[in-house]
Amino acid sequence: MKKDFFSTKLAEDVLATFSSFSPINQEVVTLEEGLNRVLAKDFYAPEDLPGFCRSTMDGYAVKAEDTFGASEAVPVWLTVVGEIKMGEVPSFTLKRGETVRIFTGGMLPEGANAVVMVEHTQLLDGTTVEVFKPVAPLQNVILADEDFAKDSLVLPKGHRLRPQDLGVLAAFGQQKIKVYKRPLVAIISTGDEVISIQENPRPGQVRDVNSYTLSALVEEAGGIPLRMGIVRDDPKALRSVCQEAIARADVVLISGGSSVGMRDFTLDIIKSFPESEILCHGIAISPGKPTIFARVGEKAIWGLPGQVASAIIVFFVFVRRFIQWIGGERHFPLKAFKTIKARMKTNVPSVQGREDYLRVRIMQEDNTFWAEPILGKSGLINTLVKADGLVKIDWSSEGLDKGEEVEVILF
Amino acid sequence: MKKDFFSTKLAEDVLATFSSFSPINQEVVTLEEGLNRVLAKDFYAPEDLPGFCRSTMDGYAVKAEDTFGASEAVPVWLTVVGEIKMGEVPSFTLKRGETVRIFTGGMLPEGANAVVMVEHTQLLDGTTVEVFKPVAPLQNVILADEDFAKDSLVLPKGHRLRPQDLGVLAAFGQQKIKVYKRPLVAIISTGDEVISIQENPRPGQVRDVNSYTLSALVEEAGGIPLRMGIVRDDPKALRSVCQEAIARADVVLISGGSSVGMRDFTLDIIKSFPESEILCHGIAISPGKPTIFARVGEKAIWGLPGQVASAIIVFFVFVRRFIQWIGGERHFPLKAFKTIKARMKTNVPSVQGREDYLRVRIMQEDNTFWAEPILGKSGLINTLVKADGLVKIDWSSEGLDKGEEVEVILF
Repeated sequence: MKKDFFSTKLAEDVLATFSSFSPINQEVVTLEEGLNRVLAKDFYAPEDLPGFCRSTMDGYAVKAEDTFGASEAVPVWLTVVGEIKMGEVPSFTLKRGETVRIFTGGMLPEGANAVVMVEHTQLLDGTTVEVFKPVAPLQNVILADEDFAKDSLVLPKGHRLRPQDLGVLAAFGQQKIKVYKRPLVAIISTGDEVISIQENPRPGQVRDVNSYTLSALVEEAGGIPLRMGIVRDDPKALRSVCQEAIARADVVLISGGSSVGMRDFTLDIIKSFPESEILCHGIAISPGKPTIFARVGEKAIWGLPGQVASAIIVFFVFVRRFIQWIGGERHFPLKAFKTIKARMKTNVPSVQGREDYLRVRIMQEDNTFWAEPILGKSGLINTLVKADGLVKIDWSSEGLDKGEEVEVILF
Repeated sequence: MKKDFFSTKLAEDVLATFSSFSPINQEVVTLEEGLNRVLAKDFYAPEDLPGFCRSTMDGYAVKAEDTFGASEAVPVWLTVVGEIKMGEVPSFTLKRGETVRIFTGGMLPEGANAVVMVEHTQLLDGTTVEVFKPVAPLQNVILADEDFAKDSLVLPKGHRLRPQDLGVLAAFGQQKIKVYKRPLVAIISTGDEVISIQENPRPGQVRDVNSYTLSALVEEAGGIPLRMGIVRDDPKALRSVCQEAIARADVVLISGGSSVGMRDFTLDIIKSFPESEILCHGIAISPGKPTIFARVGEKAIWGLPGQVASAIIVFFVFVRRFIQWIGGERHFPLKAFKTIKARMKTNVPSVQGREDYLRVRIMQEDNTFWAEPILGKSGLINTLVKADGLVKIDWSSEGLDKGEEVEVILF
């Protein structure tokens, strides 16, 4: 009987090998191109923001002391000496008993230290206003350095830029930003049975699903896909395409290799490159066990299972995080969450000693999410089309019970 | 005292008005461009997939009946009559007592109805194999229509395409797909105090944060941002830019309008267009109350609060969903989840009668996520940069208790 030739690693040990890879190069992009890019250096505030003292309300800028004791019954009367124009520096200094009309975002004049909301005032004539409520110093005011103080850390290196982060960079006038390059990921589809999507398959042939699925997964992970086409089950052809892929890309994905022979020679081909090292050959997860992870110098090679569902799950659990890692992202644990809590609709047995990734569909009933397992063979793509996400069954678990709460990683 | 001039709507009533808008036009894109696009028609399987009977294992194709009763002690002997080449149609028909070598994904020959895993066999010589375990008919086999049967619904109209969905379209040879156009969203920044990010602000001036933040939010929501630039607080100028924006785009976002006068004339300008209708003027949420939502014919106009944090939250809660809605997406409730459950780190009071959106930072302690409120004025962007997401406090709630479980909508 054929023995198991895999030297299998636990999932966490595979993830631990990532740290031996450094982030790839950096580049400068415009702010408009910055969404979802990863900052390549800490960004410190070059100046105070907003840089001047602003009103947060429509109302009247005052010396707070002048309003102390004001009430509906005994209002305070102040002399209106003008109106603050938006975007302009007030040309006067407020004296005791004086006030100016001000709008949200307007700059406080010298001598003012608070703003009374317009709702708590009544204009008697062009020059006198009644104030019905006192304000404390600094009330309804943003200080010059209240948003960010000069030299404070605004965004750390390794942070993926969200819309609000671009907003703050705009506020500081950063037209260009230094980010990590998007990892270039070469995708090689292998198999004598695989044809291009332009062709009509004869019985026995299938169209190239993995190139399209993996390209889109690479895009989602922040990488740039580079399709290398379909390679026949021929060691020479595969080695030559691999060599080109290693030269051009940061990461090489080889999918397919469906025959046992092909799997064997994929490993031999990787070993044949100088500076190559097999980091893992087999991972204790299901589906996805026959995964290869190797390095050739600073470049990484992933040999993915040929079964389409297995390839997608291995990508989701490992390759995606790897692309984020070499793309310099260091805050991904929280950002990567795209999960919901749900309860299992049925019991699901599992085998101890490996992580199982169960495809599930989510249903909402009585304000609860229910996760229904989508069972099916790894060679079928319909299970992933019907599924909303994956549930991880820990390697030490014997399975999930009906009603048990689980975390679903959403697609 | 000035009275509240808003005719405020509840959040759910605002969402309900979306259904009066139809999805925008459709277009045809290549499969490579399909990620995150929304299908504009139901996609039915044009043929069976995989279209032929395939092996899911490396092993031997057999007549299942021939293996019945096989065991380690009493193996069944079968005659090996050849090997199935990947991608080819077997040229022979299996007879009783015969078997062929087959690999994962290979096509079963006529006469075979199951596959014995190679691990349960031993090859004795070139032509005889011992089988140690029986297989049932159809075991380790994918039927010709098992992934998808011809004419079955594969993907519904209104579905946003994920990597695996592109994979299944590739499997069916769909090089082009009909999708909804990405909504074109014009962004108008207003305010005499707002300057471009290329300029250096004098005291009293601020750089144009909203254009950049909103552009990125539009991109994330699947729309195409169209920056119309900065408009001074001048009704004629704003009307003219609005008119151009309505002509060119599907949705117009007006941000700013910080002075009371500006807010008033934004409403008047919208009303001055033929076929205009104010759908909402004020929403019972905090922050974000002074929001305008209007239609001009089939085009939509959102007047967003000038405060940067308020504008982002209103976008997150309403505008994003509106862009998805007119972009034809109809399955967004589940897809929109990007949430985690967390426990409140502190008590947070709230006012009944409005929805409060609390910015929170997430911390992990003892395997639990804790949501810590980030308090700060709506005019500050730092609260959103520090925050990981939003917690909604329902309009009927008086607040959240320390330790209470909440759902955090992640940025």
